[in-house]
Amino acid sequence: MIITMKKGANEADIQHVIDRVNGVGLEPRPLYGIERTVIAIIGDERTLDVEAFQAMHGVEDVKRVLAQYKLVSRETKAEDTLVTAGAASVGNGTLCVMAGPCAVESRDQIVEIAHAVKDVGATVLRGGAFKPRSSPYSFNGLGEKGLVYLAQAREATGLPVVTEVMTPALVPLVAEYADILQIGARNMQNYDLLRAVGQARRPVLLKRGMSATLEEFLMSAEYVMKEGNPDVILCERGIRTFNDYTRNTLDLCVVPAVKQLSHLPIIVDPSHGTGRPEYIIPMSKAAIAAGADGIMVEVHTDPERSVSDAAQTITVEHFSRLMGGLRHIAQYEGKRL
Amino acid sequence: MIITMKKGANEADIQHVIDRVNGVGLEPRPLYGIERTVIAIIGDERTLDVEAFQAMHGVEDVKRVLAQYKLVSRETKAEDTLVTAGAASVGNGTLCVMAGPCAVESRDQIVEIAHAVKDVGATVLRGGAFKPRSSPYSFNGLGEKGLVYLAQAREATGLPVVTEVMTPALVPLVAEYADILQIGARNMQNYDLLRAVGQARRPVLLKRGMSATLEEFLMSAEYVMKEGNPDVILCERGIRTFNDYTRNTLDLCVVPAVKQLSHLPIIVDPSHGTGRPEYIIPMSKAAIAAGADGIMVEVHTDPERSVSDAAQTITVEHFSRLMGGLRHIAQYEGKRL
Amino acid sequence: MIITMKKGANEADIQHVIDRVNGVGLEPRPLYGIERTVIAIIGDERTLDVEAFQAMHGVEDVKRVLAQYKLVSRETKAEDTLVTAGAASVGNGTLCVMAGPCAVESRDQIVEIAHAVKDVGATVLRGGAFKPRSSPYSFNGLGEKGLVYLAQAREATGLPVVTEVMTPALVPLVAEYADILQIGARNMQNYDLLRAVGQARRPVLLKRGMSATLEEFLMSAEYVMKEGNPDVILCERGIRTFNDYTRNTLDLCVVPAVKQLSHLPIIVDPSHGTGRPEYIIPMSKAAIAAGADGIMVEVHTDPERSVSDAAQTITVEHFSRLMGGLRHIAQYEGKRL
Amino acid sequence: MIITMKKGANEADIQHVIDRVNGVGLEPRPLYGIERTVIAIIGDERTLDVEAFQAMHGVEDVKRVLAQYKLVSRETKAEDTLVTAGAASVGNGTLCVMAGPCAVESRDQIVEIAHAVKDVGATVLRGGAFKPRSSPYSFNGLGEKGLVYLAQAREATGLPVVTEVMTPALVPLVAEYADILQIGARNMQNYDLLRAVGQARRPVLLKRGMSATLEEFLMSAEYVMKEGNPDVILCERGIRTFNDYTRNTLDLCVVPAVKQLSHLPIIVDPSHGTGRPEYIIPMSKAAIAAGADGIMVEVHTDPERSVSDAAQTITVEHFSRLMGGLRHIAQYEGKRL
Repeated sequence: MIITMKKGANEADIQHVIDRVNGVGLEPRPLYGIERTVIAIIGDERTLDVEAFQAMHGVEDVKRVLAQYKLVSRETKAEDTLVTAGAASVGNGTLCVMAGPCAVESRDQIVEIAHAVKDVGATVLRGGAFKPRSSPYSFNGLGEKGLVYLAQAREATGLPVVTEVMTPALVPLVAEYADILQIGARNMQNYDLLRAVGQARRPVLLKRGMSATLEEFLMSAEYVMKEGNPDVILCERGIRTFNDYTRNTLDLCVVPAVKQLSHLPIIVDPSHGTGRPEYIIPMSKAAIAAGADGIMVEVHTDPERSVSDAAQTITVEHFSRLMGGLRHIAQYEGKRL
Repeated sequence: MIITMKKGANEADIQHVIDRVNGVGLEPRPLYGIERTVIAIIGDERTLDVEAFQAMHGVEDVKRVLAQYKLVSRETKAEDTLVTAGAASVGNGTLCVMAGPCAVESRDQIVEIAHAVKDVGATVLRGGAFKPRSSPYSFNGLGEKGLVYLAQAREATGLPVVTEVMTPALVPLVAEYADILQIGARNMQNYDLLRAVGQARRPVLLKRGMSATLEEFLMSAEYVMKEGNPDVILCERGIRTFNDYTRNTLDLCVVPAVKQLSHLPIIVDPSHGTGRPEYIIPMSKAAIAAGADGIMVEVHTDPERSVSDAAQTITVEHFSRLMGGLRHIAQYEGKRL
Repeated sequence: MIITMKKGANEADIQHVIDRVNGVGLEPRPLYGIERTVIAIIGDERTLDVEAFQAMHGVEDVKRVLAQYKLVSRETKAEDTLVTAGAASVGNGTLCVMAGPCAVESRDQIVEIAHAVKDVGATVLRGGAFKPRSSPYSFNGLGEKGLVYLAQAREATGLPVVTEVMTPALVPLVAEYADILQIGARNMQNYDLLRAVGQARRPVLLKRGMSATLEEFLMSAEYVMKEGNPDVILCERGIRTFNDYTRNTLDLCVVPAVKQLSHLPIIVDPSHGTGRPEYIIPMSKAAIAAGADGIMVEVHTDPERSVSDAAQTITVEHFSRLMGGLRHIAQYEGKRL
Repeated sequence: MIITMKKGANEADIQHVIDRVNGVGLEPRPLYGIERTVIAIIGDERTLDVEAFQAMHGVEDVKRVLAQYKLVSRETKAEDTLVTAGAASVGNGTLCVMAGPCAVESRDQIVEIAHAVKDVGATVLRGGAFKPRSSPYSFNGLGEKGLVYLAQAREATGLPVVTEVMTPALVPLVAEYADILQIGARNMQNYDLLRAVGQARRPVLLKRGMSATLEEFLMSAEYVMKEGNPDVILCERGIRTFNDYTRNTLDLCVVPAVKQLSHLPIIVDPSHGTGRPEYIIPMSKAAIAAGADGIMVEVHTDPERSVSDAAQTITVEHFSRLMGGLRHIAQYEGKRL
């Protein structure tokens, strides 16, 4: 940690900081500059409360040197993590393609779509049984019935299933049916939920919150891993910016950044990331070219009849073209798909 | 709802949209312009799924005319709502000042601070028993013991208590001790939690999410009201922008905007909104001058020893000066404080 | 400057950085921590190129300790600057109110409005002769004729005049007519223009760019001052965020932050900052309560007939009410208005 | 244009809007809904001032139906534009790679780098002679001498040259030496400069402003084309968001969006877009996979000695690997490189 004192800080201010650092068993190293004094702290600063120092008299600024996450860090584990769920796996050179409707609408719908996306090359079936909706008046999913239909679609096709769980009390139920537990963007910092899926015996797909910094994103993965669950798949799905021509701004550069800092796999969701079908193919290819371990995409046999997110759902034909592009880039990148 | 067709949309595309609108019992009114056709929909569009229309062939853009919230709207209820919790109330000309430490640390600490802030003019005591922290390694509150201490501080001072509840399962417990249930910014779109506090018999303090639009903010309040709880207090606490000189960007203009659209009271939290003690007094005064119904501020008898959020906590002396400024502006605005 | 080395940085990497620092005459102080080495630099880092160090092998991060501006800094000049233009002044306890139409439309219009706003209490007349417009097809001002009309309005009322100059070649012309030269938000980093007004003998009103950080804002003021012009008035006019209920997001907290870092006066423009007349009164009062040295507001005797920015222009009656609010707050704050 | 009246708007308010629309020769079509009246305008709304309507009594909201640009629109010109500059061209299936140092430092430096990047496959040489710097104390380029060196590098290698022009007065000088005139991000809305390059007989590389919407970006291109210059190359170089792990957030989705709305070529600058060399290769590949017509990248034979932007500059070896990736994707996309 580096503490920068204000220009006017006096001896007593500086000594007070030094005493406090000594008090917690770390080693303060004051550096008396021309205009300001800087105090560097030697030792594991992760045990320190940055804010307490920021509040001290005469302190201008406090900066951490070490990231706050450990388990997710590539410094802790150098080799890429491979996450496996049923017949599918993702990470360390293996790409996955999660495809399916926004919401499970009926048994027939989900089984039909599961067959269609599998034929084209999807490796995981997606579909919402519990749907977060900004309006309390919107359709919010079939609930447990939706989970049953998903399981039936898995049985019919062999595709493992990923679906969202929105609240801790339902984690056991959803884990009974699903192969991968999805944490939605709005719940990225729902810590009770993170702890609950951290204790479940299922891989977790963690979507980045709409305004989450990279560090916050990794800290939320740390919550899951800290509970003993090593199987976390990260997912970039667009951040909120001033842009108004897309629903969100897909931040693809987070892919190489995560690869640098963490061993966890990261996939990209261009459906939520763009909100418009015509941008989904180019942005899916771009994601794989940027190094992503896969994509998650909303596909429907009849997008317009989709009960939710119709505007960002592509057809099976569209999806088939998309897969062609991904395979080509994957091959050049030396990835399995 | 207004549907704008693409320039190249043909007769069949237009007819298809018209048929679909008729199919749901609303009235389509096509307007054939020089470059584009626009289809206006007469009727209550709130039952319509905007996205399904956006997904149709030949459609360029779909815009709602009506807001999606009803119960929180000033069109539904013209007069300001007054929310009462114990001895305090807020809204319709009555200001409230919620003050106290970031976290409850001990019985003595919270009782001492409660007395101190009450003496200076606070009307509600704040203090976290369950704390959301971005790191799983940080102190996350005393839990139920913290609630007990808060109740003891209320008993000692008469100040009603506001404290955060983070997960649906704990709503009954927190409601047993607290006078006002706080929903934190990270949980603004935790819909299961919103429903749970909507069913509790306690006023709710709903903090705006870090990247929530005004409409999303009001929709979350609608979730609470829809469950039968009319007592919602909104709270602006800063949004996330590119600014790096403060922790968040306090969006004070949301105050007059909420007043225009809704009958609910809105207060401002300058502690989280700025993250620096030296900005808390000016921004508190600015909030009241902008029309806010109160403020929520972190005060500690020894900020530097505060176990969390020390950097944005003010002293009691500082708080006393702040109250002087608020009273002056409140008087000119004709508000009770 | 503080240089943090990567975990894997070796002796040669560290020595290379140290040699380079020595090479420019500063003093490197390496601190060997448990996980990382940190190198603090003693001396005036402002002569150093941060980026060159960031590019070195084994370097993870480089942080400045000192701000890059000098002349605008309160560390250089402790007392508030008072800027005077004609009969008006601003800063160091004196408030100014700049009011008038978005654009000068005719001699009669500007003279009529000048009288109207002066009667109510404006201290400076604003009005655009050269107008920046995002569309090349929009009305972009009367040009020199507009300047002549402004000068006539000044003659008629005694109000000094502020108007925008958009390009270096026109600085001498605009300076001939105007009392204060305005740099618009889009030109905050038009460095040739900043240098040109820095050489003019007129106070400069520098508007914050839509996505300017606080440091960039102050650096642009430094450009003007470096050319020998000490009379810079800063102006917050809203930043661009995800918010969609206002044209921009008025960042009022920048007011106390500027006061802390700089001696220059800062005013607020709630017309551009909100884009809606119903928010202009509350946000003007909030600006003064936050410590601003004045406001700049668009006023028209017939807003709807205004040739530009009609949507954010208020009437003279509205403006009169606004002035009442400002006077009250100014009095409490001990400011002259 | 679609005008939505407020719920409480009365007959007179509605009639006033209708009269005003009739007054400008367009056709108003009022639609009386259950809760609100909507007035659609038939005719070319581009001649209308949206704001004047927004300012009218009883008006809630005004929305345009037509985009404000014409010349840049794909509706005006369906086929892709190919821009040619010397031996290079870009657009309509031809990719370009602009490479070179941030700044021209000496004759030897620029000639050496020009040879190096040409050998690896660059098609255009970049290099700054006039450099925009946020600090007035930073190196701001060699000026005309830099232009001379660039011309010498062109002579030595045959590579056409792109360099920035920052102010209208220097357009003739820069156009004398450069093959392509670059408008920097900070000047995207410097309208006098846009007009000046619009009148020059050189292709223009227009960089997107840090907080420019897609519409504003295209409107700035419209400024250039309106002056008679059809050769505009757009360039995405990152937008400003809350992200703090990169210098800017590269918004790659703007590539397919521009392709949909406009016939102009668009390239991507991953150097400024990310600010970190380790992200430049993945993001360059992603750009081409997303459909970009080329990239612009900072390359130096000794990045660490680069006088500016060292932190985002890659080596020639790095650049060579990058070119390999681009060629592979280009081939699959059927583009010439």
